[in-house]
Amino acid sequence: MSNHLSGWEFRCERCGERHAPSARLWHCPACGGALAMIGPDRVDTRSIQHDAPGIWRYGNVLPARPGSGRFLGEGMTPLVSARVDGHEVHLKLDSLLPTGSFKDRGASLLARFLRDGGIERIVLDSSGNAASAMAAYAAATGLECVVYVPANASPGKLVQARAFGASVVPVEGSREDVASAAQRAVEADESAMYASHNWHPVFVEGVKTWALEVWEQLGYRKPDLAFVPTGGGSALVAAWRGFSTLAEPGAVLPRLVGCQPAACAPVAEAWLRGDEIRAVSPGPTLAEGTRIALPSRPVQIMDAIRSTEGFADAVSEVEIVNALHLLAGQGIYVEPTAAVAVAACRRAIERGDVSEDDLVVVHVTGNGLKATDTIAALVAP
Amino acid sequence: MSNHLSGWEFRCERCGERHAPSARLWHCPACGGALAMIGPDRVDTRSIQHDAPGIWRYGNVLPARPGSGRFLGEGMTPLVSARVDGHEVHLKLDSLLPTGSFKDRGASLLARFLRDGGIERIVLDSSGNAASAMAAYAAATGLECVVYVPANASPGKLVQARAFGASVVPVEGSREDVASAAQRAVEADESAMYASHNWHPVFVEGVKTWALEVWEQLGYRKPDLAFVPTGGGSALVAAWRGFSTLAEPGAVLPRLVGCQPAACAPVAEAWLRGDEIRAVSPGPTLAEGTRIALPSRPVQIMDAIRSTEGFADAVSEVEIVNALHLLAGQGIYVEPTAAVAVAACRRAIERGDVSEDDLVVVHVTGNGLKATDTIAALVAP
Repeated sequence: MSNHLSGWEFRCERCGERHAPSARLWHCPACGGALAMIGPDRVDTRSIQHDAPGIWRYGNVLPARPGSGRFLGEGMTPLVSARVDGHEVHLKLDSLLPTGSFKDRGASLLARFLRDGGIERIVLDSSGNAASAMAAYAAATGLECVVYVPANASPGKLVQARAFGASVVPVEGSREDVASAAQRAVEADESAMYASHNWHPVFVEGVKTWALEVWEQLGYRKPDLAFVPTGGGSALVAAWRGFSTLAEPGAVLPRLVGCQPAACAPVAEAWLRGDEIRAVSPGPTLAEGTRIALPSRPVQIMDAIRSTEGFADAVSEVEIVNALHLLAGQGIYVEPTAAVAVAACRRAIERGDVSEDDLVVVHVTGNGLKATDTIAALVAP
Repeated sequence: MSNHLSGWEFRCERCGERHAPSARLWHCPACGGALAMIGPDRVDTRSIQHDAPGIWRYGNVLPARPGSGRFLGEGMTPLVSARVDGHEVHLKLDSLLPTGSFKDRGASLLARFLRDGGIERIVLDSSGNAASAMAAYAAATGLECVVYVPANASPGKLVQARAFGASVVPVEGSREDVASAAQRAVEADESAMYASHNWHPVFVEGVKTWALEVWEQLGYRKPDLAFVPTGGGSALVAAWRGFSTLAEPGAVLPRLVGCQPAACAPVAEAWLRGDEIRAVSPGPTLAEGTRIALPSRPVQIMDAIRSTEGFADAVSEVEIVNALHLLAGQGIYVEPTAAVAVAACRRAIERGDVSEDDLVVVHVTGNGLKATDTIAALVAP
């Protein structure tokens, strides 16, 4: 791997084993746990590269170089304000990233990291936003992209990935069967790698730029609270990584709030119980991006919440719909998964858990244009 | 109207009549022609307001103030490069504006201008991107929004506008009947105004920021050529307005290229004939945004092309599809209307009309997520 990886390591969140960063690892070879990527990273006002585009202004804390692929416009999304029950909150509009979701941040970095490491083909399992994002940055970096999908996946959700040139392989069986098929496909092929946003530690390193941009856009201030839609947990863990990069030793981090639909809330339930995350049986929810029965990074998710004195919450489908309308009524169009965080923010305000002085950020993770059919049903005349 | 309108005027492109800027005028009361808005505008590196968000960094040449509404993230979209037949061209990604099309620029300014002028309700006719954009900025500025649509309009295209709270009024008859119904609705109502992107001069003033941003993002250089999808012509005329704002007297402006589908090419045909624009009978085209039989601003469109020594061109449906695939293969997802300009750029390169040294910009006017059904058919397995 390149020289700029000196000082970085992969560390298993479960057994603590350390590994040199490698394009050939996506989870811990010792125990199968999720890896975190830890590096000699520190961001301050002087480290920002103002002439670098998008996320690359934080290149000093990213484990790949922009030059390995085309820039598609990833990063520096607008921070806008909206009114939520009398409170002014800041919305980080990652819905306006090139493929329409926050996953562009991680996909851009991961595709370059793998390409730099000699990989020629990426394989992943997804039936939605991750497939679109990884396929786009595979195209931008010259990687082949193969997406394994459930045989019953909605074809509409794969249009974008197909347009970017990804091959789509339908698999019969459960969601886990699809993931296993993708993982097996790379074992037989030295030039291929499993590029899962739910597992790969480099993906999180790319996503952490959302928190760094918020800090910069708030005039080099950290928010007091950050509400984040939480499914696989990459955006939440990434916020922790990003804000930690800014912290002087002993400094206070923003309280991170894991936001889930009640229909699938393993993180919120773990937080309420005060123990660790256990698998749930997901019910139906409009917030498809957060419908993950058991996140791959359970230790990092709970650490992100507990070490920042944050919390987790579960919101009903009605609250999700109301939150979507609340933003649309102010001109902001989000997918239901993103509305989960607005709904949780609203509940926190109503409970009195947010004070007038609190600087509040909500991570708007996906564009309403990704969910036209769902939203059509909500606004039918 | 506010003080900051001193020095600005509306001028009829047809009869030359001048009018004080007014929220009560949308076309020339003397002859019915389209109005242009002319002001004491000049942009240079010192006039940029770097701490103002989005388009408002060019507030000194905009006839409304940002404070009259919420900022939704409009402006400062990425400028990225892509490879077109061996040439590196710059793509201005207005596809990443808040509602997914360049129309956000004009809608943001027009909504504020009308609100500042005492209007409470806007009425327009559209069945697509303009409805989404005007509805969003109506919501952001506290205006009511009523959209007249053809009775046979696709409901999917109105989901976004409905979500923003717009009322939708279906009208039987031709496209012209729909426009007439909208225009009649405001005659009977002092608090309402016709807010047509195809007619209103303030809309163009907002859209011109795309050209100013390109200049800034190229390091304060104007491109040599700018390819612009051309239907109603607002983006093309706006480019002329924007780049003129930068010109010292006698300076060379970028050659502006009006790009149309062959199925509906009144501008390209006028340019070939060497005379004025005449109405055509539009055939079917994937590029719905450019399917306008007779643009409302024919004089300004031809002036923009001729006075910059530009040209116009018409592209086939196959060329549109190929251009869409060309960009998607590099990770950039656009709607077919935007692909029209890429296709025209490619034709110009193939004809030898673009030299190696030419700095070329293509205006990417709309997001592929706006055209999922159309693109699905193009990438079906």
